[in-house]
Amino acid sequence: MTEHTRPREIAAIDMGSNSFHMVVARVVGQSLQIVSRHKQRVHLASGLDEHHNLDQPSIQRGLNCLAMFAERLQGFEPDNVRIAATYTLRQANNAHVFLKRAETLLPYPIEIIPGTEEARLIYLGVAHTQPDTGRKLIVDIGGGSTELVIGEGFETELTYSKHMGCVSYNQHYFPKGKISSKRMAAAQLAAEQKLESIASLYTRAGWQAAIGSSGTIKAIREVLIGLGYNDGIITPERLDKLYEAILKAKHYDDLAFEGLSDDRKPVFAAGVAILCAVFKSLAISEMVFSDGALREGLLYEMEDRFRHSDIRTRTASAMAKQYNVDIAQANRVKDCAEMLYNQIDSHPGLARSELATLLNWGALLHEVGLSISYPGFHRHSAYLLRHSTMPGFNLEQQTVLATLVRFQRKSLKFEEMPELSIYKRKHLYPLIRTLRLAVVLNGQRSDEPLPSITVTADKETWLLTLPPNWEQDNRLLAADLRQEQEYWQKVGWSLQLGEHTDEKPAEKPAEKPEN
Amino acid sequence: MTEHTRPREIAAIDMGSNSFHMVVARVVGQSLQIVSRHKQRVHLASGLDEHHNLDQPSIQRGLNCLAMFAERLQGFEPDNVRIAATYTLRQANNAHVFLKRAETLLPYPIEIIPGTEEARLIYLGVAHTQPDTGRKLIVDIGGGSTELVIGEGFETELTYSKHMGCVSYNQHYFPKGKISSKRMAAAQLAAEQKLESIASLYTRAGWQAAIGSSGTIKAIREVLIGLGYNDGIITPERLDKLYEAILKAKHYDDLAFEGLSDDRKPVFAAGVAILCAVFKSLAISEMVFSDGALREGLLYEMEDRFRHSDIRTRTASAMAKQYNVDIAQANRVKDCAEMLYNQIDSHPGLARSELATLLNWGALLHEVGLSISYPGFHRHSAYLLRHSTMPGFNLEQQTVLATLVRFQRKSLKFEEMPELSIYKRKHLYPLIRTLRLAVVLNGQRSDEPLPSITVTADKETWLLTLPPNWEQDNRLLAADLRQEQEYWQKVGWSLQLGEHTDEKPAEKPAEKPEN
Repeated sequence: MTEHTRPREIAAIDMGSNSFHMVVARVVGQSLQIVSRHKQRVHLASGLDEHHNLDQPSIQRGLNCLAMFAERLQGFEPDNVRIAATYTLRQANNAHVFLKRAETLLPYPIEIIPGTEEARLIYLGVAHTQPDTGRKLIVDIGGGSTELVIGEGFETELTYSKHMGCVSYNQHYFPKGKISSKRMAAAQLAAEQKLESIASLYTRAGWQAAIGSSGTIKAIREVLIGLGYNDGIITPERLDKLYEAILKAKHYDDLAFEGLSDDRKPVFAAGVAILCAVFKSLAISEMVFSDGALREGLLYEMEDRFRHSDIRTRTASAMAKQYNVDIAQANRVKDCAEMLYNQIDSHPGLARSELATLLNWGALLHEVGLSISYPGFHRHSAYLLRHSTMPGFNLEQQTVLATLVRFQRKSLKFEEMPELSIYKRKHLYPLIRTLRLAVVLNGQRSDEPLPSITVTADKETWLLTLPPNWEQDNRLLAADLRQEQEYWQKVGWSLQLGEHTDEKPAEKPAEKPEN
Repeated sequence: MTEHTRPREIAAIDMGSNSFHMVVARVVGQSLQIVSRHKQRVHLASGLDEHHNLDQPSIQRGLNCLAMFAERLQGFEPDNVRIAATYTLRQANNAHVFLKRAETLLPYPIEIIPGTEEARLIYLGVAHTQPDTGRKLIVDIGGGSTELVIGEGFETELTYSKHMGCVSYNQHYFPKGKISSKRMAAAQLAAEQKLESIASLYTRAGWQAAIGSSGTIKAIREVLIGLGYNDGIITPERLDKLYEAILKAKHYDDLAFEGLSDDRKPVFAAGVAILCAVFKSLAISEMVFSDGALREGLLYEMEDRFRHSDIRTRTASAMAKQYNVDIAQANRVKDCAEMLYNQIDSHPGLARSELATLLNWGALLHEVGLSISYPGFHRHSAYLLRHSTMPGFNLEQQTVLATLVRFQRKSLKFEEMPELSIYKRKHLYPLIRTLRLAVVLNGQRSDEPLPSITVTADKETWLLTLPPNWEQDNRLLAADLRQEQEYWQKVGWSLQLGEHTDEKPAEKPAEKPEN
């Protein structure tokens, strides 16, 4: 662990569909001390058109906010900042445009996280900031998506993210800001439809405390307090009253609740409609509010990783088990890949350890697809790694893992390689080459130790050096390596094979004839 | 079970890459009595070019053979004939051309079966014709693929099919029929490479008897007998002698072994090279030959299905278990789909029961994809059903199941529907409509019984009739059905909703007021 003369500062940015938030904390002993919070409403989701393109004004609003946050982050090490983007950038076809421009403003990668991952982090954020209340249901109504989680302690059990949020529902059900009972009913019914398929899962799982998180539910709580419910507890009856009170307005401008900010007004009715649907579908009797949210989840997890307790390791192991991976073989390939990769030059500009870690997980999971079927199993592995719910991984990391295992064997059809944003192809290629070599070298799936192997990399030309006369004793391996050479050649790479010379020269004299 | 005045006759055709075989059997009590065998060498695999297109002369050879077989099958009911195509048609991009033309010659569907399915059926064929020898390794070197199976009784444990066969290896390693020690060594080494990844699996699993099946191994056995090894047992030493004897020839024309037919000569060296590789990789000490093969496997399985013991039912249940399907929900959807489908007109020309059975399995497995992740789970379900090893299912059936579950919900993007050959879209559409309705009607995943529902189908217009005033009590279901109407409308289908009128009219008088 790195030593700091003064407490380490870490920061998390949550690029939500309604607001962007930044929170900075000081690591004091085993705990985090929040030192500043920043929030700006950018209502990003409202810039998403029907073809899932994010319009220019929204992109600009988002970038302006990031530029402002960047000032506060001057001098922060990359390891101490985590930035997560949610619903809107998950949906936007042109997310790469946003990310590309953001790169010039912030020297930190922006991770687009899957909905279930968002849900898990929100849970973590709440669980870490809330006194423990046993089994919890946590609901977070965001601008574009709503997360629903059941968990206990720091472990989640059910994590779903539904495509419904106060910004998107406002646009769809309350066009031009008009409010009517028909609109409210339509919005609530649509939300109930979204929840229909999971409602029975949640009610069957049960909880001891229902907790709301983030802006929408916070605003509802504050309006309820303004209406005289000073304990701030949300109940179905109070929500009904609020629902009726909203219907007195014809337009969001007419909403004159104590505690309701002008910023929140445009999306308030949609938020209430969604929360009413959540209460009804899940039969919630009361809900309290918690200050913990996605950004706190990011902070606490950053700190966990720093302490070498990375949930991703657990995820990868669980997946290997779920798909009956031959662990002995996976470990042979993993160890061999690690041995080879350690001999390769490091990659300036990107945390080498992160790449090495991804290679490790890729090696551990490269055969998950065998559980589907043998033919084309590298493609099945890629499908599973790309689409599975993998706690702790962001979308880009899942894509990198999927790409790695996709290209573990057979032709290097790079036209099938997906677009990446944080990582570049130049980072991936050495990982792919390393994993392929490790797979070939362990093709016999045997516990026999490998001969001593060194690798030297000079751009696209890699030289693999094996013991003298290795080929005579390893005909099959030699044939496999020659085939691998052909695969490399077809994409302009070069794999050269050599033999160690002058091995153990000091011992040579001892082998001389006796006389 | 249908009653026959004379024993039922059943027939199986195995369209191999080297030869087509037909076998006809009489069902006598619980056993099969083979009444005729037919074989023609069509060397289909040799017509496969590098772009995986089957050339016209090969297609014609295949069709001529089928036309000849068809004469023998005059008057056979579709239920009593099964035709399976293997490697070459699995590989051929233009397989549909072949199948289309074959349809005019034979009124029976040609099933293209996956390699693992081929392996399983070969095992069945051998297991049924061989006295039980305990745990068995069965090897079948075909024209385009080699199957390796370990099993016990009638249960298989390891089933692999490798892309190597005597026709394809002959083309690749013995061009123009030339034989040399270099060519033999190259062919054997390539085969060892193919086996490398599975060899340790097999040797670890072990067996009591190694048995060879089909033409290649039969020819080797006969040549060995010709060389004086009268017991016909194949051993590594004898194979070595045969290998050396082959090397005395410069061309296949020079192969003058007793017991070797002219037909077999062109592919004999390739077959021996592959068998040598199999012996070496799996460390086989001796192998006997069995007459049972794919065609017998097809026959015995046809008979099993006839006796209502369909391995596919077991496969579907095992898959539901493997992927943790919510069985209660799967059964609700299955029962509902069955209830609806029974109300729809039958489809002349195709066994309705087969379609209903596919619908059943589709319903049972429609949620397997949830084990990967919730978003887009219908696509994950489709991926698993299309690519998994599913004993008993042919490729077309897997494609139908995948298509069914792919279209269970959300937009009907028919541009994503794969090409089918045995089934037509007109057969699938009613299944898709039925499954969708069953999914919508059970959206609440509840054990509450459904209201009484009838369905009337008139081409693309389906009328769903529900109890009077059902909408008031089922707002969510009504909203779901309206959304479903929209999905249907976008592809030119129509879903109409009605209410039962005059329910139980006969009882009406009893409800009159007392006075």
